[in-house]
Amino acid sequence: MISKAKSKFIKSLQIKKYRKQEQSFVVEGKKSVSELIRSDYEVTLVVATDEFLSGQRAYLSDRIEVIESTDLELSKLGEFQTNDAALAIARMRPNKPISIDEGEFGLMLDDIRDPGNLGTIIRTADWYGISKIIASEHTADIYSSKAISATMGSFLRVDIFYTSLSDYVDKTSQNVLGAFLEGENVHSCSFGKGGILVIGNESHGISDQVSRRVNQKITIPKYGRAESLNAAVATAIILDSLRRTQKKD
Amino acid sequence: MISKAKSKFIKSLQIKKYRKQEQSFVVEGKKSVSELIRSDYEVTLVVATDEFLSGQRAYLSDRIEVIESTDLELSKLGEFQTNDAALAIARMRPNKPISIDEGEFGLMLDDIRDPGNLGTIIRTADWYGISKIIASEHTADIYSSKAISATMGSFLRVDIFYTSLSDYVDKTSQNVLGAFLEGENVHSCSFGKGGILVIGNESHGISDQVSRRVNQKITIPKYGRAESLNAAVATAIILDSLRRTQKKD
Repeated sequence: MISKAKSKFIKSLQIKKYRKQEQSFVVEGKKSVSELIRSDYEVTLVVATDEFLSGQRAYLSDRIEVIESTDLELSKLGEFQTNDAALAIARMRPNKPISIDEGEFGLMLDDIRDPGNLGTIIRTADWYGISKIIASEHTADIYSSKAISATMGSFLRVDIFYTSLSDYVDKTSQNVLGAFLEGENVHSCSFGKGGILVIGNESHGISDQVSRRVNQKITIPKYGRAESLNAAVATAIILDSLRRTQKKD
Repeated sequence: MISKAKSKFIKSLQIKKYRKQEQSFVVEGKKSVSELIRSDYEVTLVVATDEFLSGQRAYLSDRIEVIESTDLELSKLGEFQTNDAALAIARMRPNKPISIDEGEFGLMLDDIRDPGNLGTIIRTADWYGISKIIASEHTADIYSSKAISATMGSFLRVDIFYTSLSDYVDKTSQNVLGAFLEGENVHSCSFGKGGILVIGNESHGISDQVSRRVNQKITIPKYGRAESLNAAVATAIILDSLRRTQKKD
């Protein structure tokens, strides 16, 4: 049974202001919670059914508060109403600078506003072996429940650094790639050995400050009539093209 | 100014039961509403600002009820709180059988439950020139606001037919493709001239009834550590691979 105070605390973390104040965030779902407690994140609380907990005892250190609960109680606690009931609170990581090294690819998110898109981009990056993301300050918060949930656990393997993109691109000597209407065909272009792939905002694309530094413009060919692609979908197609080119090299 | 009764009616269409009863659905956002009134959908109501309406007069026939409103009022009316304020109600289309002809590609959705995923899949299909979708009866409702919104207008160009997939696959003589762990590499396989690409459920993949009829198993190669890809992302990568192969033929 979970106390009213604890329940209120967990719910408060759905709001960015309180996440920041507590430096803590919520992870929902059995699979994600089970991966979380095996990771090097500092976990402070796990709320789950007895059935789930019994399989996890070896990973639940004394420093983690563990509360046994029911599916019903858990479904009221989290943001998502699922039968996949387990919930944890972990400490946020500091927003540390990330450098994308020579011979390595990273992503740059230019105001990705939708937390679901952000999470799906992180999951896709993880699939394609990309673990470093630079995000603009107006990009959605990775620690929101929606974003964490959409990563399907990939937030544990992909680092994200929120910063001013115009400052960042001014300093980097890397190849900077971005999707534009009039670029090279993504099916036939050469991607080089490393670089930073910029993903633009869902409505406005890549901002002026960043686009003036994009030195390789690429285009995803269209065969039908949609005006544009979803940001996570575009990311996936470019990363898939990039990896298949590297294989050929 | 919009009446309380009208406002209540619009809100009721967020619920599937009422959409079915009224055979009507809501379209939100200036771009989508503007495309809708130019389409052959039967539009019954448009609520928008004077500024938006003034550019659309030529397309607003006498049979469409037009209500002038404010951004504030509109933001309370729709499901999405945006500044992109326009809203319309249109008549649903009958659930008519679709046949995917020889030499043509279509999609089959095997219980895509998330309306955002459904909408993004439709948008992606439209980008890749695919206009026919067969969906299982438990696939999310295309007429929900979330699905319509995620299509970004592509629901106007892509037809969807809800039916029993096991019956459908038993009758078709087409090549049936699906993503599995142990399939041919999507980067190097041959897709043929036409067929039906099955997209599995977000958690459980392709159901047994459908998978026994999949005669071409394909795999998206993984370069990192995510366990799986989002359904819309996987659709996009396969369709992109398919189109680039056809170009080479």
